[in-house]
Amino acid sequence: MRNLIAVVGGSVIKSDEIKEIAFEAGKEIAKRGYVLICGGMSGVMEEASKGAKSVGGLVVGILPGKDSSEANPYIDIPIVTAMSHARNAIIVRSCCCVIAIDGEYGTLSEIALAKVINKPVFGIKTWDIEGIIKVSNAKEALDIFERDYKLL
Amino acid sequence: MRNLIAVVGGSVIKSDEIKEIAFEAGKEIAKRGYVLICGGMSGVMEEASKGAKSVGGLVVGILPGKDSSEANPYIDIPIVTAMSHARNAIIVRSCCCVIAIDGEYGTLSEIALAKVINKPVFGIKTWDIEGIIKVSNAKEALDIFERDYKLL
Amino acid sequence: MRNLIAVVGGSVIKSDEIKEIAFEAGKEIAKRGYVLICGGMSGVMEEASKGAKSVGGLVVGILPGKDSSEANPYIDIPIVTAMSHARNAIIVRSCCCVIAIDGEYGTLSEIALAKVINKPVFGIKTWDIEGIIKVSNAKEALDIFERDYKLL
Amino acid sequence: MRNLIAVVGGSVIKSDEIKEIAFEAGKEIAKRGYVLICGGMSGVMEEASKGAKSVGGLVVGILPGKDSSEANPYIDIPIVTAMSHARNAIIVRSCCCVIAIDGEYGTLSEIALAKVINKPVFGIKTWDIEGIIKVSNAKEALDIFERDYKLL
Repeated sequence: MRNLIAVVGGSVIKSDEIKEIAFEAGKEIAKRGYVLICGGMSGVMEEASKGAKSVGGLVVGILPGKDSSEANPYIDIPIVTAMSHARNAIIVRSCCCVIAIDGEYGTLSEIALAKVINKPVFGIKTWDIEGIIKVSNAKEALDIFERDYKLL
Repeated sequence: MRNLIAVVGGSVIKSDEIKEIAFEAGKEIAKRGYVLICGGMSGVMEEASKGAKSVGGLVVGILPGKDSSEANPYIDIPIVTAMSHARNAIIVRSCCCVIAIDGEYGTLSEIALAKVINKPVFGIKTWDIEGIIKVSNAKEALDIFERDYKLL
Repeated sequence: MRNLIAVVGGSVIKSDEIKEIAFEAGKEIAKRGYVLICGGMSGVMEEASKGAKSVGGLVVGILPGKDSSEANPYIDIPIVTAMSHARNAIIVRSCCCVIAIDGEYGTLSEIALAKVINKPVFGIKTWDIEGIIKVSNAKEALDIFERDYKLL
Repeated sequence: MRNLIAVVGGSVIKSDEIKEIAFEAGKEIAKRGYVLICGGMSGVMEEASKGAKSVGGLVVGILPGKDSSEANPYIDIPIVTAMSHARNAIIVRSCCCVIAIDGEYGTLSEIALAKVINKPVFGIKTWDIEGIIKVSNAKEALDIFERDYKLL
């Protein structure tokens, strides 16, 4: 069984910095041999997916709509839930840990749904919520994760 | 069609003050003719349900587990989702507005899932999140709701 | 806690006979003091809802879409799941028994999802599936249910 | 994006014949370059997963419970839904077509949920439902699928 790491974040990229952080997150996850799991859509999700594919990684998109055609072009495995934002609960439950980058209320729901089931959440320029481990990039997040947490 | 108002909050009551706020919230919702919708479990959910029933209101519980037996004793209509925390998305989508009282990460997920679909969220001694309308009690929340928002 | 009885069936009425059977089913459920739970949409769901309201019953609609505006006009309590056909699992899990009337593949999924969790299913002019108790009308179904099964 | 083919069937293997049919189905799916998607549990799901892995295929398990530990040992990508049988809707929506092998009411729900959204369903020694394309094995199913249907 492969270990999945989630990247969650906004569906709109707000700056070049966020774009690079998201891309590097996907790349780092794939380089370390993890599968990237995300919401499968645009913005942070797409940049992370692109980053993972840039080094030959595998990307799972848990889609909110009724059709795989909404997936960003870097998704390998489209999971079509047709359950709108309730699919956020599936993303965080399927992963070993969550890396949250920027984002708005959807991202906040993913952070909260992860914490309620005790998944570690690493935050990069995102909501300032008690219990999030603040980091600067995915490399730092995964170093902490691999040092302090067990794989599923 | 009846209008539903959601009360979300922790499954454990942490003080007499929270207990009374939750009870009064359910009571106020029912007195104004709304149906109370909540997660159907203990704590804030139970006190609000009890408050609504104290004045003859109707209470819907959107349960996370597989069986209606987990519902608190004040639930009239148990909706058994068997979908764990993903049911939080159903609670906030079915209501006209959300009153959040105290609570932990589950409550935070409900606040976020409500805001992502533009439902008004009133907060009483709960998470300090941008976009929540802070109030002291449900009476104040419903006065603002009835003045500024449309029913569904 | 109220006991819920589900009526499932097609979203299109195919004959006057089916229309009357569905109306009478909702009416009989309400007359016996049960809450009607259904998918909240048109066709058999709407006729059953109308029947229940004709005698002052209470009707819960577990809606597949994102908005309560899709509910038929006889729904009292709209539960807005935004999870498409996956909401069929919630209908059958929330009820004491299922009355299936006519219908197509959606109805078949509800019959199957009910049987997999051991809910009694009564069938009127619907799919001929092993394990369904064939009856002529809802009165017969509820007589058998009240004689042979326990409430939740 | 990879194309997913679903195998659905009972969680208990009832004969050596069913065991072989399920194993060969997973193998054939993987040999043709598709990703196998299934419910991730035992029985037909496990044999198909084993078959796909025997030729180096990729296997996605859409799990009903709260934890990836319930997955069969041949699952590469565990998707942890925590939504019980409602996850059946996700399996059939994510795939290009469904191969149903033996099975009981859970399998019937997957057949029905697939047909309601117009996914082709091939049946091998399973429920005799109108609209299923009866075949003897997965090779025959995939020959028909590749000849008559479009990929997503």
